[in-house]
Amino acid sequence: MTGVQIRYNFMAECIFCKIVAGEIPAAKIYETNSVLVFLDIHPVSKGHALVVPKEHFDDMISATDEIVKDVFTTGKKVMLAMKEALDADYVAVSVVGIDVSHFHIHLIPRYYEDNLENFWPQGKYEEWEIEKYADKIKDLLKQI
Amino acid sequence: MTGVQIRYNFMAECIFCKIVAGEIPAAKIYETNSVLVFLDIHPVSKGHALVVPKEHFDDMISATDEIVKDVFTTGKKVMLAMKEALDADYVAVSVVGIDVSHFHIHLIPRYYEDNLENFWPQGKYEEWEIEKYADKIKDLLKQI
Repeated sequence: MTGVQIRYNFMAECIFCKIVAGEIPAAKIYETNSVLVFLDIHPVSKGHALVVPKEHFDDMISATDEIVKDVFTTGKKVMLAMKEALDADYVAVSVVGIDVSHFHIHLIPRYYEDNLENFWPQGKYEEWEIEKYADKIKDLLKQI
Repeated sequence: MTGVQIRYNFMAECIFCKIVAGEIPAAKIYETNSVLVFLDIHPVSKGHALVVPKEHFDDMISATDEIVKDVFTTGKKVMLAMKEALDADYVAVSVVGIDVSHFHIHLIPRYYEDNLENFWPQGKYEEWEIEKYADKIKDLLKQI
């Protein structure tokens, strides 16, 4: 079996590829040539939408720059509509990283009084430690 | 006082504008003509970075498509470096929406065993309610 076949078989099981192909129904709200937007069936708040590229990419890192652009600029447009249509105070964007293995972003209508956390707990660095971490990432970036 | 002056005065107080201008120090890791990447001093996990446009935009909705593209494609590049440099299992992306009023994204190195939540609690729709929400956003999108 070739690598291409393995990839094909994996994608054949991908729930977002099935939604894109119309094999699984979804509450679609918008689409372009390259992306599809539909509502998450388990919403953090009602109207919570997902923007997914029509082509399969396992995650954001493996997506092309063009797809990253299409996903987030479409996301920006949907955020605006969401804020007005749902009277949301603001819209949060999240790329979880380990939910469905088809690159996608969550757009979540938020309200000042929704009692959801705003963020994870935040830590701190010991003295100079932040520079050490910055250097590690900076050095790696020089190799990309 | 004109609107331009008010905007200027607001930006003069913006902490990210001051970091971009070099008036406040930061652990910088990368920059392009349009964006700057530096470490968050209150990290969710060590190496937690922020990607900010050098030009001031209050939030993602008010940023141009070009800036949204620059911020997220640079973010993608930094994610890759972060994953390798810090041996992270994956990298989460978050646009909180109501922290600092200068558009920025959080890049957070994550580990399977980091004991952070993966997401907010998820709710559900009553029957047909999801279509009602989809229609609301869809209708608004037609006006944009």
